[in-house]
Amino acid sequence: MTHTSDIVRPPKELIEGLSHISSATATGELSRLGVRSAHITGPRSFTPGKSVVGPALTLQFMPKREDLYGESEYTDPEKQLHRHVLYHTQPGDIVVVDARGSMNSGIFGEMMLTYFKGRGGLGVVIDGCIRDYPKAKDIGIGLWLKGVTTNYHTQTSLMPFAVNVPVACGDTLVMPGDIIIADDDGAVVVPIALAPQLLEKASEHHEWEEFSKLKLSEGGDLRKYYPLREDARAEYEEWRKNQG
Amino acid sequence: MTHTSDIVRPPKELIEGLSHISSATATGELSRLGVRSAHITGPRSFTPGKSVVGPALTLQFMPKREDLYGESEYTDPEKQLHRHVLYHTQPGDIVVVDARGSMNSGIFGEMMLTYFKGRGGLGVVIDGCIRDYPKAKDIGIGLWLKGVTTNYHTQTSLMPFAVNVPVACGDTLVMPGDIIIADDDGAVVVPIALAPQLLEKASEHHEWEEFSKLKLSEGGDLRKYYPLREDARAEYEEWRKNQG
Amino acid sequence: MTHTSDIVRPPKELIEGLSHISSATATGELSRLGVRSAHITGPRSFTPGKSVVGPALTLQFMPKREDLYGESEYTDPEKQLHRHVLYHTQPGDIVVVDARGSMNSGIFGEMMLTYFKGRGGLGVVIDGCIRDYPKAKDIGIGLWLKGVTTNYHTQTSLMPFAVNVPVACGDTLVMPGDIIIADDDGAVVVPIALAPQLLEKASEHHEWEEFSKLKLSEGGDLRKYYPLREDARAEYEEWRKNQG
Amino acid sequence: MTHTSDIVRPPKELIEGLSHISSATATGELSRLGVRSAHITGPRSFTPGKSVVGPALTLQFMPKREDLYGESEYTDPEKQLHRHVLYHTQPGDIVVVDARGSMNSGIFGEMMLTYFKGRGGLGVVIDGCIRDYPKAKDIGIGLWLKGVTTNYHTQTSLMPFAVNVPVACGDTLVMPGDIIIADDDGAVVVPIALAPQLLEKASEHHEWEEFSKLKLSEGGDLRKYYPLREDARAEYEEWRKNQG
Amino acid sequence: MTHTSDIVRPPKELIEGLSHISSATATGELSRLGVRSAHITGPRSFTPGKSVVGPALTLQFMPKREDLYGESEYTDPEKQLHRHVLYHTQPGDIVVVDARGSMNSGIFGEMMLTYFKGRGGLGVVIDGCIRDYPKAKDIGIGLWLKGVTTNYHTQTSLMPFAVNVPVACGDTLVMPGDIIIADDDGAVVVPIALAPQLLEKASEHHEWEEFSKLKLSEGGDLRKYYPLREDARAEYEEWRKNQG
Amino acid sequence: MTHTSDIVRPPKELIEGLSHISSATATGELSRLGVRSAHITGPRSFTPGKSVVGPALTLQFMPKREDLYGESEYTDPEKQLHRHVLYHTQPGDIVVVDARGSMNSGIFGEMMLTYFKGRGGLGVVIDGCIRDYPKAKDIGIGLWLKGVTTNYHTQTSLMPFAVNVPVACGDTLVMPGDIIIADDDGAVVVPIALAPQLLEKASEHHEWEEFSKLKLSEGGDLRKYYPLREDARAEYEEWRKNQG
Repeated sequence: MTHTSDIVRPPKELIEGLSHISSATATGELSRLGVRSAHITGPRSFTPGKSVVGPALTLQFMPKREDLYGESEYTDPEKQLHRHVLYHTQPGDIVVVDARGSMNSGIFGEMMLTYFKGRGGLGVVIDGCIRDYPKAKDIGIGLWLKGVTTNYHTQTSLMPFAVNVPVACGDTLVMPGDIIIADDDGAVVVPIALAPQLLEKASEHHEWEEFSKLKLSEGGDLRKYYPLREDARAEYEEWRKNQG
Repeated sequence: MTHTSDIVRPPKELIEGLSHISSATATGELSRLGVRSAHITGPRSFTPGKSVVGPALTLQFMPKREDLYGESEYTDPEKQLHRHVLYHTQPGDIVVVDARGSMNSGIFGEMMLTYFKGRGGLGVVIDGCIRDYPKAKDIGIGLWLKGVTTNYHTQTSLMPFAVNVPVACGDTLVMPGDIIIADDDGAVVVPIALAPQLLEKASEHHEWEEFSKLKLSEGGDLRKYYPLREDARAEYEEWRKNQG
Repeated sequence: MTHTSDIVRPPKELIEGLSHISSATATGELSRLGVRSAHITGPRSFTPGKSVVGPALTLQFMPKREDLYGESEYTDPEKQLHRHVLYHTQPGDIVVVDARGSMNSGIFGEMMLTYFKGRGGLGVVIDGCIRDYPKAKDIGIGLWLKGVTTNYHTQTSLMPFAVNVPVACGDTLVMPGDIIIADDDGAVVVPIALAPQLLEKASEHHEWEEFSKLKLSEGGDLRKYYPLREDARAEYEEWRKNQG
Repeated sequence: MTHTSDIVRPPKELIEGLSHISSATATGELSRLGVRSAHITGPRSFTPGKSVVGPALTLQFMPKREDLYGESEYTDPEKQLHRHVLYHTQPGDIVVVDARGSMNSGIFGEMMLTYFKGRGGLGVVIDGCIRDYPKAKDIGIGLWLKGVTTNYHTQTSLMPFAVNVPVACGDTLVMPGDIIIADDDGAVVVPIALAPQLLEKASEHHEWEEFSKLKLSEGGDLRKYYPLREDARAEYEEWRKNQG
Repeated sequence: MTHTSDIVRPPKELIEGLSHISSATATGELSRLGVRSAHITGPRSFTPGKSVVGPALTLQFMPKREDLYGESEYTDPEKQLHRHVLYHTQPGDIVVVDARGSMNSGIFGEMMLTYFKGRGGLGVVIDGCIRDYPKAKDIGIGLWLKGVTTNYHTQTSLMPFAVNVPVACGDTLVMPGDIIIADDDGAVVVPIALAPQLLEKASEHHEWEEFSKLKLSEGGDLRKYYPLREDARAEYEEWRKNQG
Repeated sequence: MTHTSDIVRPPKELIEGLSHISSATATGELSRLGVRSAHITGPRSFTPGKSVVGPALTLQFMPKREDLYGESEYTDPEKQLHRHVLYHTQPGDIVVVDARGSMNSGIFGEMMLTYFKGRGGLGVVIDGCIRDYPKAKDIGIGLWLKGVTTNYHTQTSLMPFAVNVPVACGDTLVMPGDIIIADDDGAVVVPIALAPQLLEKASEHHEWEEFSKLKLSEGGDLRKYYPLREDARAEYEEWRKNQG
């Protein structure tokens, strides 16, 4: 019987903390921590308004080779590895798939995604497509995809190959158990070892930003209000006091 | 005067039958009938929620050659072949265009699409763009496109070349009179000779799928409910009885 | 201190006149005036329904070279040229950015775009991405982009290089001070010297088009109603009289 | 039995005349005759030093559809259309193939190309690949290709579809019977109707070019010698006299 | 200390047998054995005339992540995995590298390739580039590459990640220990389990092919000589007798 | 009359010193000096064996806009800016062209390149093509190109726009007066301010490399000989003594 590894999940507090950080803030801070680009380039939100944070289960596809992936796969569903990654689902998990950029392979369909949701899954990030999008978009999970297709996962040139191994998704390395932050700007991988530092850094936000945004929206001077210049500080303090 | 061929339209019952099949089901069954990928890759829905089934009128564009497509085309509209494909429109028809993937050529605009709708046309599948999208999206036909553009059809590098001939659209061959099934997952070509078999195959659906989906959404075991395992059959029969 | 040039803005009447012309009409008429394709290919509307007309401020990015764009840029915001193009903003302006097609660089974020809006800016056309899209889409300016990203502008391979110089955006040359017309079909550059001619040409519209569209939508003959044939003119005149 | 049309071949004198014109001169003059770009972009010379001029036999490939191109094709070679285009070969002919840019399909192999050479064929221009290149390069015909591959023509996603029909090769339309001029700069299509004009134009060459080239190679002033300026004419006449 | 697995090498007779088969024959026969395309698409010969057959050592690159591949790698060469794949070299081996198609990373340079040659290595197949090509081309090993570059392997966006694991090279799966056949047509992977069958199939060649080629080169009828028709058999037998 | 700026040329000694450094060494050392990738990606050598070092004259092309680049350009050659960059040629110069990657525009032809050679020019690096390659390859200058074409420079979609301004070539910024090092591995830009440091760094080469290469070619242990391990030093010293 097929056996695949599970991942180590991060402390709940870490996830909770990171859930207040946008993907844009995350990649920016990570770049200052030395990771040039944590952005998973390619997959974009197909569920506008949805944002998720959670650990990554990973699924790797490889170019199909008919001597290794034959007809028998269809007769025994348990040999289909794209099912196995979902078996590991715990509440809060996110599935990251290296689908090799294929626009012709629908990695998951309605039934798989329904099961994933039923198990508490939050979202999927795929360097490729799903199918059954008309129904999948309403299941309640977040979808970051390159597109949608009519085809099933192994119909043309791919086959599922490994579960919870390091994968390249959107030209970015994702290790099983890394944390994913995804919203309408896209998806970002947070290396698990850097997650605590990111949380710390991202929490040092500037209290005056709200004030600055207000002033800018009223036609205020960018040089004065962003970043907040010394001679605007008094005005900011005044405003802050009035906010109560 | 320019003359172009019409297509042979399939029996109404065939279209009616296929109209209950999704594009995802169609390409999956066709792959089991031997057609590796019936998916027209590239064009995606620009009219979300819309789904159509009907026979294909086809229009082929070629790279423009100024010695063959000169200024005179503008003075005599009847020489413009993209009009001729529309002359053949009968209620239920779908127009498939090989626009060579161009993002700079708006194959049809508001007036052409309004005429197409007036004649009973259902939708267009274009390996390229239309223009006048702000208005076209509300005409009531389905649009499967690669994008939209400001340019008219022959403005840059294309010219209409032939009507109701075999065309390559989205790297898939479409013969005039083949059947198109298109929805939010994309567009699929059903070879006319395989349509009856597809209809038969696709009708053998599993009655237990609704039940399985329900169980999965409640956190049920994928191995048990999809596909339905022997030891879940009693539970299913019970549920079915209760459905009345 | 960094100094960048401003642009010459066109007469208000010219902008007002052009604001009644769609991007599709503009590129079509410009092609008849000799400009093969005025379409800025690539950027598409990320604010559906929005349309803008105004003069172009321009911003040029170049491939980052670390010897020219170092860490010091971050310590002195005034050295960041993407701020400077916004300093020139006057009510009605549009910013056009050559972002070299990068999908990994968010040219502007929420604060910059808020400032731009505060100064009266109408829209941005970028051969690339912005970030903070979840908030940016509601600021009230029009956005024509290739996509969105989590990354900030200089995070990966670009650096801002020049303001209000000629730029290539979407494979189309835009001179500072040219006029941009953008709507859901895309963005078009109107060379400032051709703007008066375009206005004149585009104003010669056919009064019968509304009538023709009505007839086509009712299944009328394309050959008879578009363009309006001699033998349909009486019918049109009758219709027009009844319109009151 | 499969029947395909032959082409009309141009007068020998026309071919003979054009054989003194380079592909670069041809496309330049054709652009002045109104054809924007007669360059077949993509295929490049795989037989350096070889140059050919002759009429085009054409072969069109289409995306493979297994319901139309099945196993039976292999059992009856006569059904394979890529053989049929070669049956039409007359001495001096050139075969132009629309292989849809495929890098995975070897249109012809050693045996087919040997037969083509045996019949007097001069060269092939393919928007794709051949196979058996190690031997094919020495057969004695000119090869303009995108690359070479190990695969045979119908191994992956293509099937031969029509012979001596209009084809798009390298984003350029080639009509059967048009003339091809190909050398190390690439391949150019000469529309048959424009061939006499091209011949006339291209023959008006400047006698002073040889002189100018000599002077430039010696460090002469570009402004003075190219094009030849009035004040250099005496020097040229002197040089010419000395040439004898 | 870093440890990586070795591969199982095939019997010498198998390699010897396959060394008489061209890459074109191999992929053709493999397609008849069920492997759609064994062609490693992308890498092409940079050492014309060279052909090699041998078992595959594999090296996998991943997108660089600075938290996992830092400066320390440079101080301890033993941490650089691209060295480790070469440590396994035995006479007759071929190295296959998944370099993710990068045109900016020179996987090996002169010193590494010299060592590989010294150990008996035959060739490298890289879905990317090498550097030091001016010298590397003369070392005596076969090179199948996408191109050459000035950059070293980890200079931009890649890092070596694993040795002798399954890799995707040129959109084709290569398992460690599979056999590579490469020549001027390109490189092909022979799944080790299919190698004996391939050897058997490919050995059933047609003795009349040499005769047919001769006849075709003299203008003989393709229909008669390829494949050899019944009525040409006597002529062939005669020719064969005369060959002695 | 058109006026364009000249560049400041570096001291002869600097060029002389750098002429002993390969492009591979240069980009490697520059990366250690902080420039991530100095490689001009895309253009490759079309004159194998040729290597050049010299200061960069630059030429910028822009997308053609017919209102700015009309027919009159042909009547007055002095308005053609691609001539002007060549007017600045001094012995040892290299021309770098941003041709926007076009495969349809031949930036220079035989006459221009002959003039460039006559003036002492060493080579051209073009993010695009030249034409007249059959003759140009023998003029004696180095050519780093993306390809060759039949078309002239302004035939399709480009126009020359500026001379000796900063250009992006192969996704790398080149400032006029920077130094280019180009050989069979490709072309590298050396920022002029870093050139002395590069020279210093690159001169610290390891004397034992020749010895190591010899040992590796004889099957020596990579761990022992590259880099040279302590316990191999005695052997090296011995070898060196014997070299005399």
